[in-house]
Amino acid sequence: MYKVTFKFEDGSQVENYATEGETLLELAQKSNVVIDAPCSGNASCGKCKIKLLEGQMESKKTRHITDDEFDQGWRLACISELTNDVEVLVPDIASAFKSRMKVADLSSKDEIQIFQQTKESIEFAGIDLHNSLDVVEVMMDPPSLDDTMPDNERLARALRKYMNLKTVRFPYSVLLKMPDVLRESDFTVKCVIRTTPDDMFVYDIFPKDYDVVIGGLAIDIGTTTVSALIINMETGEILAKASSGNGQIRYGADVINRIIESQKPGGQLRLQKAVIEETINPMVEQMCSSIGFSKKQIYRMCIASNTTMNHLFAGINADPLRMEPYIPAFFKTNSLFASDLGIDVNPDAHIIVAPNIGSYVGGDITAGTFVSMIWNKPEFSLFIDLGTNGELVFGNSDFLMSCACSAGPAFEGGDISCGMRATDGAIEACTIDKETMEPTCIIVGGEGEKPIGLCGSGIIDVISELYLAGIIDPKGKFIREGKRIKRDEYGTGSYVLAFEEEAGSVKDVEITEVDIDNFIRAKGAIFSAIQTMLVSLDFDVSMIDNVYVAGGIGSGINMQNAVNIGMFPDIPQEKFHYVGNSSLSGSYAMLLSTESERKVYEIAQNMTYMELSTVPSYMDEFIGACFLPHTDINLFPSVKARME
Amino acid sequence: MYKVTFKFEDGSQVENYATEGETLLELAQKSNVVIDAPCSGNASCGKCKIKLLEGQMESKKTRHITDDEFDQGWRLACISELTNDVEVLVPDIASAFKSRMKVADLSSKDEIQIFQQTKESIEFAGIDLHNSLDVVEVMMDPPSLDDTMPDNERLARALRKYMNLKTVRFPYSVLLKMPDVLRESDFTVKCVIRTTPDDMFVYDIFPKDYDVVIGGLAIDIGTTTVSALIINMETGEILAKASSGNGQIRYGADVINRIIESQKPGGQLRLQKAVIEETINPMVEQMCSSIGFSKKQIYRMCIASNTTMNHLFAGINADPLRMEPYIPAFFKTNSLFASDLGIDVNPDAHIIVAPNIGSYVGGDITAGTFVSMIWNKPEFSLFIDLGTNGELVFGNSDFLMSCACSAGPAFEGGDISCGMRATDGAIEACTIDKETMEPTCIIVGGEGEKPIGLCGSGIIDVISELYLAGIIDPKGKFIREGKRIKRDEYGTGSYVLAFEEEAGSVKDVEITEVDIDNFIRAKGAIFSAIQTMLVSLDFDVSMIDNVYVAGGIGSGINMQNAVNIGMFPDIPQEKFHYVGNSSLSGSYAMLLSTESERKVYEIAQNMTYMELSTVPSYMDEFIGACFLPHTDINLFPSVKARME
Repeated sequence: MYKVTFKFEDGSQVENYATEGETLLELAQKSNVVIDAPCSGNASCGKCKIKLLEGQMESKKTRHITDDEFDQGWRLACISELTNDVEVLVPDIASAFKSRMKVADLSSKDEIQIFQQTKESIEFAGIDLHNSLDVVEVMMDPPSLDDTMPDNERLARALRKYMNLKTVRFPYSVLLKMPDVLRESDFTVKCVIRTTPDDMFVYDIFPKDYDVVIGGLAIDIGTTTVSALIINMETGEILAKASSGNGQIRYGADVINRIIESQKPGGQLRLQKAVIEETINPMVEQMCSSIGFSKKQIYRMCIASNTTMNHLFAGINADPLRMEPYIPAFFKTNSLFASDLGIDVNPDAHIIVAPNIGSYVGGDITAGTFVSMIWNKPEFSLFIDLGTNGELVFGNSDFLMSCACSAGPAFEGGDISCGMRATDGAIEACTIDKETMEPTCIIVGGEGEKPIGLCGSGIIDVISELYLAGIIDPKGKFIREGKRIKRDEYGTGSYVLAFEEEAGSVKDVEITEVDIDNFIRAKGAIFSAIQTMLVSLDFDVSMIDNVYVAGGIGSGINMQNAVNIGMFPDIPQEKFHYVGNSSLSGSYAMLLSTESERKVYEIAQNMTYMELSTVPSYMDEFIGACFLPHTDINLFPSVKARME
Repeated sequence: MYKVTFKFEDGSQVENYATEGETLLELAQKSNVVIDAPCSGNASCGKCKIKLLEGQMESKKTRHITDDEFDQGWRLACISELTNDVEVLVPDIASAFKSRMKVADLSSKDEIQIFQQTKESIEFAGIDLHNSLDVVEVMMDPPSLDDTMPDNERLARALRKYMNLKTVRFPYSVLLKMPDVLRESDFTVKCVIRTTPDDMFVYDIFPKDYDVVIGGLAIDIGTTTVSALIINMETGEILAKASSGNGQIRYGADVINRIIESQKPGGQLRLQKAVIEETINPMVEQMCSSIGFSKKQIYRMCIASNTTMNHLFAGINADPLRMEPYIPAFFKTNSLFASDLGIDVNPDAHIIVAPNIGSYVGGDITAGTFVSMIWNKPEFSLFIDLGTNGELVFGNSDFLMSCACSAGPAFEGGDISCGMRATDGAIEACTIDKETMEPTCIIVGGEGEKPIGLCGSGIIDVISELYLAGIIDPKGKFIREGKRIKRDEYGTGSYVLAFEEEAGSVKDVEITEVDIDNFIRAKGAIFSAIQTMLVSLDFDVSMIDNVYVAGGIGSGINMQNAVNIGMFPDIPQEKFHYVGNSSLSGSYAMLLSTESERKVYEIAQNMTYMELSTVPSYMDEFIGACFLPHTDINLFPSVKARME
């Protein structure tokens, strides 16, 4: 056994023991040390770099490690076998993916504005905002020697009479509290109930003086990030909001790698635990304690996520999702309750799952489409969700068509050497001086925050600026030299946004030709998907009335720059709208309003899916889109004009 | 900390550490060492005797310990404070109550005959023997790229079409298995289902070739003993049978002491765990492994028990049961599922609870009354359940009246110095030679088994024989002397059934005047309850057509001897029927047959309850009955004749 010490930049450390031949990445995963490993440890992505401080490991040199870096001790964790005691430094650029949880400050209007807007637009569409949960107060005659009706019948009788119902059902949790609460409160109590026309389910029982708030939990389970709200189910008020990295990240950055990991022995349970016990439960805990709310008073929850995420969340075999004929276990399901999955809220809380429409278009898209309201307008709209993958929906009140494209995780910083998601330290916007080539960056976290990487919107800006400044050519190759341009031994260029000494990280924050190439392929996938879908419908970009952009790419996304690099079609700026995390606001809508929930099922039912890989022209479209902005510059007249 | 070593007669031992002043009984309870403590440790019953082998304890002498015994090291565990390291012997007479589990040998016809009879009598009464569980085989079209319906909808569609239903519901456990089973079995599967006219609940799913048996679990939770059956829900066949001591026994022998214990911090959970985790789950485990059956294939269960036992089983506050106005949390409940209580069968198994009619007449009586069939006959019948308490039901197809009497645990061997339940080593029958006063005993366990105590039927025989032989007078005082008659320092007599050297225990097996006095009060309670109930209805004993005696007193009960001591009314022997554990056979009936279940609810609904303590004449009746056979010998003409 070898002793391995993982050191972090904040000075903390974790120790564990490895067996002969175990890789550092494997040991890190066992030790709950999060090292980013988007390619699941097959040495292809180069993201799992760590720095050897003490001792020796069996480790190969790869194209991801320069000679200099190797001499300094940099290694890929996934191909470093442990054969001695070692001490390693886990750099922040990797641990930025660590499940850092953040409970939002709701005094900031920005955090809740979007949900207010969601509520208003639902109401505007004539959809009822209510759900089936309610609080009622009931008064009973106390028992006596002449009236010995047992507690449950006494309460059921009172509720039946009050509500004119046939049956009243109590779950075990309520039966358990009943004798004490009835007596403590002199047989006048408040009940949290769900009613249908002829029956009632009683979720909870409280003494009459208790101020009962019915809590609900809305969650967006992204492949990379999980976001959640606790709401007041009667008013729709946001009581708490939090976000966290998805604890599954250490088992692979994308859905395919997660599914592969889930097929290993114990994998399904491991991935389920990562998202529930290590991500959702701690978020609920923190949100509740921040507002002094009882977890057991969350009586309903809704999750919106892609199909793989909702299968892994439920612990259900997701392997069929990636194998022909790509069949999910469910599109929608009524089978899930909090107690089934070990979610630490009221055990009887029903889990609403935003419906999938297939393996590659899931509940995040159906819920997001609902809140985009494109289904409620005669004009043609395009809804684009830039998550760890890219999904598109196009249509109007008459039809909706969707497709998914393998854009990869670049928009959230994946597959990019200094990429990260839009958390503290991420460069989220950038301009580059055409003459001096000096950058001016905006960093998430604000003043004083040092840059440690680039998030999606930052990458778009940097590539657009590098291109417009003539620093890179349409293929993304560096064609100018200067202080900020580095070349490796093969002449491959990179642009340094922050030198090591200015950066919050242990190395330069830079963007390389490899990164740019990856990003061009990602944006090419999006643009070619838009083109292919429009062509198949005999549409062209001029007929698009609105583009709604959703996802974790960040509210700072500069639409003009996204057009400049050929990611979005060249249409007027005012047609673009950033709608933030529409999966979360969709989840909020479904949770709060039963009619919205029904509407999402209806949208899912009617949405058609286009499998791009079966469209012959898609590959040509894609290859054409893998340039800045496009091989056919006439598709981007405004960019053409600007370049001239 | 003092080291305490508990030694057992089988040579095994348990060690634990005590803090200063802790009593030996408290430490034993913590250490899972079962020392019988019917009085819950207040030095009143004298049952917790242990023998000090090594070291010293602070222990008072009480009336339960003679000088000789004290010198030999005998102490009451409940008043022995630990102040040194000690070694103690825990005698078998106490550990006979230990939760020894016994899986029945079903090749013996006796074990299952009663259930066969139960089935036959239900059928004879025209009641349907079916329940709502079924196995169906369904064939689906496998999915393809042109038919991408998800698994749950595909299966639901097939089941709906097949059964002509509106809705099909899958619990989480089924959704979890679904993708694998469907593919393993080429989309032809067997489902365990419950159907109502328009909906279906799917409990389980299996590959088509699997031989599916629908299992059910019937349980009788007695205060002292728990009995259980695993049955085939389609045929009613008994697949396994087991019994065990109720793990709660170490928290008190009767319901009142258990309720008191449950009110201590953590008490409710402790008592619930004692009966579920330490008693029922191990029984299920053993039964299943003895027949190679999967626990998860038990899809429904039924428990019959007294009101306190079903409240403690459910972990629900039972305190209101013992305090005016004596209100249970439930008479009947639909709220309990296996997963709620942590019972290790299918998590969705519904728990049927035989209905209570009040605090002192519970589901054991309503279920037992059902299988006695007294509700289905025009003749008047008396149903007597001799459990840890005594309950009576009198009536016919027109009316049913019940009452409970505080007979105490004497019929199961409680409150009797050498009392025990009818397990191996118990004297279950006895005759005593009028001249020599020598006993001839029948021991449970058969040939070679040495006597260690007396069970209920044995006590009845011994007292009847002692009385008829003129060894004791009508007050139960010893009036003859001899080798087998011992006298203590105060002249109090006892009769030795087996001297230490013949016994399987470490001391003489005897019956004392105190024991006889306790038993006379117990039988007096039964007889006076019968009398009081009959008188209140203007009946007399001659109008009783049948007496059904149920309970753990043992099939060996000699009805004539029970009449001789004035426990049962003096009517012809052929009117008496021993019906065994009617609570278990009632539970079996409710589990197997939905119509029987409904019938039991109906019986409970219509049964009236007579509170004896509010009947002025009851105390007089009781005092009159506290003689052998009665102060009014004319009530027992056949005994009078025999004595003359």
